[in-house]
Amino acid sequence: MSGSTFGRFFQITTWGESHGPALGCVVDGVPAGISLNEDMIQWYLDRRKPGQNAMATPRKEDDRVEILSGVFEGKTTGSPVSLMIRNTSQHSADYTEIATYYRPGHADYTFDQKYGFRDYRGGGRSSGRETAARVAGGAIAAIFLKELGIDVCAYTEAIGPVQIKAANFDREAIYNTPSCMPDKEASKQAEELLRACRANKDSAGGIVACRINHLPAGLGDPVFEKLDANLAKAILSIGAVKAFEVGDGYVAAFKRGSENNDAFAMRDGKVIKATNHAGGILGGISDGDEVCFRAYFKPTPSIARTQHTVNKDGDEIDIEIKGRHDPVIVPRAVVVVECMAALTIADALLSNMGSQLSGILSFYHREN
Amino acid sequence: MSGSTFGRFFQITTWGESHGPALGCVVDGVPAGISLNEDMIQWYLDRRKPGQNAMATPRKEDDRVEILSGVFEGKTTGSPVSLMIRNTSQHSADYTEIATYYRPGHADYTFDQKYGFRDYRGGGRSSGRETAARVAGGAIAAIFLKELGIDVCAYTEAIGPVQIKAANFDREAIYNTPSCMPDKEASKQAEELLRACRANKDSAGGIVACRINHLPAGLGDPVFEKLDANLAKAILSIGAVKAFEVGDGYVAAFKRGSENNDAFAMRDGKVIKATNHAGGILGGISDGDEVCFRAYFKPTPSIARTQHTVNKDGDEIDIEIKGRHDPVIVPRAVVVVECMAALTIADALLSNMGSQLSGILSFYHREN
Amino acid sequence: MSGSTFGRFFQITTWGESHGPALGCVVDGVPAGISLNEDMIQWYLDRRKPGQNAMATPRKEDDRVEILSGVFEGKTTGSPVSLMIRNTSQHSADYTEIATYYRPGHADYTFDQKYGFRDYRGGGRSSGRETAARVAGGAIAAIFLKELGIDVCAYTEAIGPVQIKAANFDREAIYNTPSCMPDKEASKQAEELLRACRANKDSAGGIVACRINHLPAGLGDPVFEKLDANLAKAILSIGAVKAFEVGDGYVAAFKRGSENNDAFAMRDGKVIKATNHAGGILGGISDGDEVCFRAYFKPTPSIARTQHTVNKDGDEIDIEIKGRHDPVIVPRAVVVVECMAALTIADALLSNMGSQLSGILSFYHREN
Amino acid sequence: MSGSTFGRFFQITTWGESHGPALGCVVDGVPAGISLNEDMIQWYLDRRKPGQNAMATPRKEDDRVEILSGVFEGKTTGSPVSLMIRNTSQHSADYTEIATYYRPGHADYTFDQKYGFRDYRGGGRSSGRETAARVAGGAIAAIFLKELGIDVCAYTEAIGPVQIKAANFDREAIYNTPSCMPDKEASKQAEELLRACRANKDSAGGIVACRINHLPAGLGDPVFEKLDANLAKAILSIGAVKAFEVGDGYVAAFKRGSENNDAFAMRDGKVIKATNHAGGILGGISDGDEVCFRAYFKPTPSIARTQHTVNKDGDEIDIEIKGRHDPVIVPRAVVVVECMAALTIADALLSNMGSQLSGILSFYHREN
Repeated sequence: MSGSTFGRFFQITTWGESHGPALGCVVDGVPAGISLNEDMIQWYLDRRKPGQNAMATPRKEDDRVEILSGVFEGKTTGSPVSLMIRNTSQHSADYTEIATYYRPGHADYTFDQKYGFRDYRGGGRSSGRETAARVAGGAIAAIFLKELGIDVCAYTEAIGPVQIKAANFDREAIYNTPSCMPDKEASKQAEELLRACRANKDSAGGIVACRINHLPAGLGDPVFEKLDANLAKAILSIGAVKAFEVGDGYVAAFKRGSENNDAFAMRDGKVIKATNHAGGILGGISDGDEVCFRAYFKPTPSIARTQHTVNKDGDEIDIEIKGRHDPVIVPRAVVVVECMAALTIADALLSNMGSQLSGILSFYHREN
Repeated sequence: MSGSTFGRFFQITTWGESHGPALGCVVDGVPAGISLNEDMIQWYLDRRKPGQNAMATPRKEDDRVEILSGVFEGKTTGSPVSLMIRNTSQHSADYTEIATYYRPGHADYTFDQKYGFRDYRGGGRSSGRETAARVAGGAIAAIFLKELGIDVCAYTEAIGPVQIKAANFDREAIYNTPSCMPDKEASKQAEELLRACRANKDSAGGIVACRINHLPAGLGDPVFEKLDANLAKAILSIGAVKAFEVGDGYVAAFKRGSENNDAFAMRDGKVIKATNHAGGILGGISDGDEVCFRAYFKPTPSIARTQHTVNKDGDEIDIEIKGRHDPVIVPRAVVVVECMAALTIADALLSNMGSQLSGILSFYHREN
Repeated sequence: MSGSTFGRFFQITTWGESHGPALGCVVDGVPAGISLNEDMIQWYLDRRKPGQNAMATPRKEDDRVEILSGVFEGKTTGSPVSLMIRNTSQHSADYTEIATYYRPGHADYTFDQKYGFRDYRGGGRSSGRETAARVAGGAIAAIFLKELGIDVCAYTEAIGPVQIKAANFDREAIYNTPSCMPDKEASKQAEELLRACRANKDSAGGIVACRINHLPAGLGDPVFEKLDANLAKAILSIGAVKAFEVGDGYVAAFKRGSENNDAFAMRDGKVIKATNHAGGILGGISDGDEVCFRAYFKPTPSIARTQHTVNKDGDEIDIEIKGRHDPVIVPRAVVVVECMAALTIADALLSNMGSQLSGILSFYHREN
Repeated sequence: MSGSTFGRFFQITTWGESHGPALGCVVDGVPAGISLNEDMIQWYLDRRKPGQNAMATPRKEDDRVEILSGVFEGKTTGSPVSLMIRNTSQHSADYTEIATYYRPGHADYTFDQKYGFRDYRGGGRSSGRETAARVAGGAIAAIFLKELGIDVCAYTEAIGPVQIKAANFDREAIYNTPSCMPDKEASKQAEELLRACRANKDSAGGIVACRINHLPAGLGDPVFEKLDANLAKAILSIGAVKAFEVGDGYVAAFKRGSENNDAFAMRDGKVIKATNHAGGILGGISDGDEVCFRAYFKPTPSIARTQHTVNKDGDEIDIEIKGRHDPVIVPRAVVVVECMAALTIADALLSNMGSQLSGILSFYHREN
């Protein structure tokens, strides 16, 4: 119950089903004075749109965001920013069959168990469309972080077995390739792979990586509100994510302490780490280095081939899920990961302001 | 700030540094009427104790828990249960040198950055000792879950490259081997490995797995409070965890949809899943199957060999960390993982009671 | 920051300014299976509408609510219910003058101090119009409580010195008189008083009382989440409320213990209280008796007569606030009080379900 | 459930029953760098002690506070401060009779209804002794506020019909008179009154007032987290409080707008209010003026005279409550009110730091 809110200080509440009239997000705790308009948010939403290529479903989703509150004369006012995206091209008729059975890999069964029934149109609240609302809200966090010089950058690291090559990192390609990979060659290979998947009535998973730069040291709290713990929750709250790792992640479990520790050193009079196995976080608190993490996505569960399942009458049946579905969820999830990370960082940033008496004294001395 | 509380309904707040007079935990939201005494909690704490073998530090930690409130005539009263563990064998003198420099892989630097200074005795709040308080509190969650027939079982799956064999699963061995592996042979190999590590002044990482059985379907909420998202946060909030995965986890990223989907089927008139790649959670909600996840731990950062770092005056120096430290953190972390999982599940269980009008009506009709 | 959410389990988040395109409310934690449609909510909103009489401003506010999510085939789904009310008849032009000075009794000055500037159109977020969103959300709480047989009834007890007479209590009159008084005679006197106020370019305050019946005993928590403490917060969060009392309230401060204690007695085999000075709450927990409390409202600060104030340039000036304003806020606040009470009770009701192990066991035994 | 925590950013969690081994408070979110020791907290606890006069029970309560964590070398570290007070002079034997019946005006009945049974020793968690833990925690908030120059001062304004005279305000008398009245003459009259009460086997109520000075403008949030709404909750969470008012409070309901509005004016180049009917808060946000509020306490429910009630077998019986009880709760509650106010203000102060982008930019520019 009441699980549609994320964040303590910079807080979003999302609502809406894929086939209702609209979906949206209320962003509360936005500091006053940030320049904001619909186009700035739209840039993020457009990155979530399905394209017209091997990667994505040909469904048309317009996803125009409207700002309904919290902005006055082009600036945030400190009041909640309400964002709405109308659902324009949903056809409920496509989904009535789904009402009668449980799709493998979907939340149909668990919704029925939890609530006694479900909105079966397009998955209702468990639909990937729910993430449009997060992206709209998270865009505001990202825009806020930019004002502080903080850069959050997510991208596709792998689609199935096709991985990017670090040497080829091309940031612009994230926004220009259908795979959202920062490596045009790998992207082409991924397109091949997905064409084969689709021909095969199958789907693929993959990895989204995220890098956060110019983060002040000191963000995150030492025990339950560790920065990486909150990032993990943020990322696992995205449907289809099955694993999260920070820094070297699961590989660290197989290394020796002498290989995994990052030596401290001095550079230009500042403390730095000679390596960054830790991923920019020590003891749950940012260390001033690049924060980097990965999200592992399962393959899209909606596949065209025949699957075995159970219907609501308790009969075992064979189904073929109709409609055109993304053969991979990863490229569209890149901006979702980026936005969830931005929300987590914005929250940590505001929370950190009360850490030291000296900081509070100087804040109030200046202000009043 | 205020980051020492975990859970919304079944809630723990921990406090205490490794070298203060005591550490403890306040458990709020414990239902009234649960049989509880200190011995029942002590069983969990004893599993966290260091042993006298290759795996663990020879430091003596007695860790006797005292119940200070919330229990009357052997039953919980519904009031907060306050638990305290006195620190008995800490020698602050050992640690004064640490005050002057930043240990690689530790939170010394980030604490200084966040708070302006730190309690350098034994790592203060970032010490592994902080987890004793979680275990004390989480034990109450586990005891509560047992009353509902829910079984939470964590164990060591790997220490460095040494993995258990599924065929050898021996639950008793979890409690009897120094490695907490459910496989006595693998445990012996792990002991070898750690002896080599120690001889080499080095340390190892590993994997803790956790299985939760007899969980009702319907726990967890569909968006931000997904059961796996909350487990991820719970687990990443344990120091030294670098990755979390649920079900098949990161491997799922490399599989096809047709391989990864779990077909539904009927057994004894009930809906089941033919396989459990999902790890017992669909759309963030438990599906009635076994919930299983893994935590990947980095190698202990405190190693005896010479390391390069920086002191508070900004000089690069070489250090050798004194004292005897665990060459691996994993076996002692098993019960910490188990307790954090129990807390997460207890919270989801209470939260779920308000999901359906019919359930609420029948609850209040019966009660009043 | 992030202060637009109320409730822990049954939770509303409101958004919107009086002169933006719309305002609204997201209601999260609504149990699945409650019959709900727009007309059911509209009944509450209509009670907040200004009438065409001495009591209220002649501004026309249509306040049609739209349900944007969380309802499927006439029932709540357990997903957040998003409600929107378009602002149709707002004329920003009326308010530009207000931008330049601080109205006495309003939040103009404090908003400027907090946020650096403000949305000056109609008071922005501090406008009484914000309460429309609460009423929309609170209506759902009230509808939910009705399913459990719980009745929440607020009414005007006094307008300025005109008080209702207990003997004349006429519930229908609450909905039929412009004063929302359950006493037609008192209501007429109040109309007189307000005509005089208006003629005098002045305004009046008053009292809203609320009675909650058929509440189960056991709601509320003993320490910080006392039922009366949460009601107090709910009620003081309504602009213009200056005092809150439960049961006999402030009068109790002047009584003796022997006068104020409520003796317990037996009636029809059940424990009852012979009197109800306590107002249905003992130690912060409902005792099964009628819960009753009062909210004291200040007179409307917007008055037509000349007032002294300061402008943004720091000059002392005399102003006359234009536009037609309610000479009393109380009648329109009645439904706001009722809705905030319903939200508080709904929250306590859900929270209470985890109080006893026996209740939890029987809930899950039945459910699974 | 989980209702023992107060505050969002500066947060206390209290635990303990009057007759357990101890009670205590965990204070989380305390900024690092505040000078703190046990004597500083003890000054507040000592003000809560019963004296040896007409006002108070002759029970001896030593209430020595111990700091168990969060302070290092005389300064707070940013980690939770755990405070414990041992119960030294409690005699459970005195209370066994109470277990069998419900005391009028107490929470015996409601605890039984909520939890199925209760810790009947001295009222368990509903005992006034619970407030010792709040005072210990609130003292830290008060000490923190002093560092910012903010002064929180509570005092007895009335005991039964005996009220202080504004002209006689003598701050030192708050700490020196048994009544905690800032007026020695009124205090003597109150002592007379209470002697009569005690002779009569009866008790009295009264009023605690609180004034907060040098508060920056801008604290509190405009909708649900209004500063006065949070003060109301804080104060009503103190057992025995039946009403709360801010500024002129309930009297405002009977005034005209022209009488109640506070004109703005300029003084020394700053915006001030010519009067302060509002009590220093406009629209839920502090206006820079003195914040003042009142708490109305009911008479002590434990009285020596015969009372009618019901026992657990459902028989109506007559009881005489044994033991010596305070004939008035008000003087001992003064410091409780002061501490709850300090906690509320500390929370608002930290929350407010994220209100404006410009403030955040300058904070991080300076810090990093």
